[in-house]
Amino acid sequence: MSETGQPLAYAQANRTRFVGELREFIRIPSVSAQPEHVDDSRRCAAWLANHLRGVGMEQVSVIPTPGRPLVYAEWLHAPNRPTVLIYGHYDVQPAEPLEQWRIPPFKPTVIGDNLHGRGASDDKGQMFVHVKALESYLRTTGELPVNVLCLFEGEEEIGSPNLPAFLRRHNHELAADVAVMSDMPMLAPNRPAITESMRGALSLELEIRGAKRDLHSGLYGGVIHNPLQALCEIVASLHDKAERVRIRGFYDHVRDWSPRERAYMRAYGPSDAEILRNAGREFAWGEPGYTLYERTTIRPALTVNGILGGYQGVGPKAVIPDRAVAKLNFRLAPDQEPEKIERLFRRHVACCTPSTVRSFVHKQSSAKPAVIDRQHPAMRAAVSAYRSGFGSAPVFLRSGGTIPVIALLQDILAMPIILMGFALPDDSMHAPNEKFHLPNFFNGIGTSIHFLAAMTDRSVAARRGLTPSEFHNGGGP
Amino acid sequence: MSETGQPLAYAQANRTRFVGELREFIRIPSVSAQPEHVDDSRRCAAWLANHLRGVGMEQVSVIPTPGRPLVYAEWLHAPNRPTVLIYGHYDVQPAEPLEQWRIPPFKPTVIGDNLHGRGASDDKGQMFVHVKALESYLRTTGELPVNVLCLFEGEEEIGSPNLPAFLRRHNHELAADVAVMSDMPMLAPNRPAITESMRGALSLELEIRGAKRDLHSGLYGGVIHNPLQALCEIVASLHDKAERVRIRGFYDHVRDWSPRERAYMRAYGPSDAEILRNAGREFAWGEPGYTLYERTTIRPALTVNGILGGYQGVGPKAVIPDRAVAKLNFRLAPDQEPEKIERLFRRHVACCTPSTVRSFVHKQSSAKPAVIDRQHPAMRAAVSAYRSGFGSAPVFLRSGGTIPVIALLQDILAMPIILMGFALPDDSMHAPNEKFHLPNFFNGIGTSIHFLAAMTDRSVAARRGLTPSEFHNGGGP
Repeated sequence: MSETGQPLAYAQANRTRFVGELREFIRIPSVSAQPEHVDDSRRCAAWLANHLRGVGMEQVSVIPTPGRPLVYAEWLHAPNRPTVLIYGHYDVQPAEPLEQWRIPPFKPTVIGDNLHGRGASDDKGQMFVHVKALESYLRTTGELPVNVLCLFEGEEEIGSPNLPAFLRRHNHELAADVAVMSDMPMLAPNRPAITESMRGALSLELEIRGAKRDLHSGLYGGVIHNPLQALCEIVASLHDKAERVRIRGFYDHVRDWSPRERAYMRAYGPSDAEILRNAGREFAWGEPGYTLYERTTIRPALTVNGILGGYQGVGPKAVIPDRAVAKLNFRLAPDQEPEKIERLFRRHVACCTPSTVRSFVHKQSSAKPAVIDRQHPAMRAAVSAYRSGFGSAPVFLRSGGTIPVIALLQDILAMPIILMGFALPDDSMHAPNEKFHLPNFFNGIGTSIHFLAAMTDRSVAARRGLTPSEFHNGGGP
Repeated sequence: MSETGQPLAYAQANRTRFVGELREFIRIPSVSAQPEHVDDSRRCAAWLANHLRGVGMEQVSVIPTPGRPLVYAEWLHAPNRPTVLIYGHYDVQPAEPLEQWRIPPFKPTVIGDNLHGRGASDDKGQMFVHVKALESYLRTTGELPVNVLCLFEGEEEIGSPNLPAFLRRHNHELAADVAVMSDMPMLAPNRPAITESMRGALSLELEIRGAKRDLHSGLYGGVIHNPLQALCEIVASLHDKAERVRIRGFYDHVRDWSPRERAYMRAYGPSDAEILRNAGREFAWGEPGYTLYERTTIRPALTVNGILGGYQGVGPKAVIPDRAVAKLNFRLAPDQEPEKIERLFRRHVACCTPSTVRSFVHKQSSAKPAVIDRQHPAMRAAVSAYRSGFGSAPVFLRSGGTIPVIALLQDILAMPIILMGFALPDDSMHAPNEKFHLPNFFNGIGTSIHFLAAMTDRSVAARRGLTPSEFHNGGGP
């Protein structure tokens, strides 16, 4: 195993500066969903590239795309050792609703043990864990224990629309033995976890159109099918009384898991009570026959993320709006296919749209579900790294979230991806008051330092021979 | 009958100036629903008071209220003649959605025969009809044929919250034989109409609350009842498959009308085809067993005016919102009571709110339905005035709209109110591209001149003796 002593001591000694740099990073409002932040995304990519140059990475470049740029960096001076691709995203969710934040979302502030700000954990803080681990090696030993490629994108929160084309065009240059990313929660500060599956996603807008213009609800109330009402009726039709999705065929291809797997999930996953506590809710809801952990990970779900229609201001306004839109989001379990679910949804909407209105379905983004093999040697390196970094062995977790890039990397680059989460369940990713638990930031940097070292370990190397081709099929025959 | 020749000639000669003055009036964005326009309301009241002074009205004053001010004016130099109270409102609906306007809503513009702008017909243009009729008398004959009080308010579009207290405090000073107002459509440019009933209204907000904060729809989708989804489910439960309101007891007190009355409505009211054409719709919707005209006038309705909840911006955002709100508007038919309907609605919501979310009902405003007696002598004066002003006899129309002040004037001041509409069904009241048909503006001024004259007519006077007390019971014993 490589020497980790110097990098760990360096990381320990530079904690305060690392937090200061992370605050600089968060201060740039690189919201990918909102066109007014296009320049901020460019600024953020430039800041990140500059930072990577500063820590000693090479061939650092900001790569334009039709949307937000990618940031690439490499260090390839460890011949005959494996290559690790570190993926992260520098874009963040919109900060709205602003009035619910305790601090301005782009003025990152340390409160107690936490750094608050949009992107603190998702994903600026978690990707910075790895950047600081690279720095800790390069600024002490002058080298990394393995070859490293960094690929940081600026459109993860809008479904990585421009990443697939880039990956396809550069799949040779991006060849690596394994990818690693950190964009998910652990169970608790002292309970680390490695994510072994994530749900897919399908974001659609359902638009209902009525009259060509807004109508007076006094003069026309009672004779015109209100698009907002029709929208509510269709949205209400999407679940049955048993709280299951009511779209025909929706559950047909959902994978059944073995009793042994479900027993592992019950033993090591969060309990119903924990999930409800983290959500701040008293009552659960959803598909019967599954624990809440199962419902959010190995079972699919459909949620309404927003409805637009009619008068949004203060006070009443007597209007029948000309149109109404629901932003819908499916979370797909293995082995559901986004294209198939989209077809089933379109059929459902077509069937239950009355002749009194017209309906339109607009696809926003989609991503396949992803499953990572627990037996892969890089997974074992990650387990040992967590044990060193956090002082306890990680459990294997399933996540309800979606990171489109996982399925993309697995499909296009044919490499497994290790999901090392450093966030916490109450970090409010995607919500107001997002934060990052600073002890996790520091222990995460230690874990990343150990992980890179462990990737060179003889026991991992001997077992698999460390050729990329074997890594790619790490799951065994 | 008084001499109408000089005032009519004056009105004819000053048309261009009248339109210019109306444009000045519309240019002030006196939106009562939006707090940022409070100063505009004050400015508009001051402008209107100044204008009334200019045309020769007396005791003109801007009367403060806890909300937007009232504007009062009088001319009381016709002893032994009846007194007419002219009511109007200088406030307007919000102009949103702004992007759908052909012109900026507060830059009134003449396009062809129409004056476009927010408030052009509702109600600045229509109240200006009477102001210009008063001017046409005062600037030619130096007097009015009857006594006149003007009461113009600035909060009609938000349910006249401060008018009842004012009317109660000043019911003696405001004593009149009859009130007149113009805030409703005719059937077509050459088909004048007098409105003989209007629906009441009840505006409520239904709020559904879930978690204390927004949640990530990936991490929690499938185990938490989404407030937006619960809201859709409750809104969908408000109508049955027969397109009737499904609230228990909702139709219990709706007045049954005689076959003769319904035959009159069929003969003189707009046809189903006309109503659909004006709405720009192909398919009707709503309660079976009634014509569309009946559904919008003598039958109640419930519409959703807006839904707020979740992410409203561009693109997707994976969020389960903490709350969702529907702005609901009931239109009430005679003899439904707003208080009773509110109780029934609260009971319905309480019954169908699942334990997984909490529901709250916030009352915004309410107004009783109003019916005006067709046999009242002032109604006959109005009929004759329209015949002179537009060249054809008006029909008696029922309106689906609501003007809270009608029930207030009838209840608090105990006077009948004549509803002389000069707008058109396609004037887009409350919608983008509101307009006022200028030939109606000019013919309306003529009609108002004739109406004031006709109120002194011996046949009206002789029949009723013209004492306020008899006018108040004008409908016969």
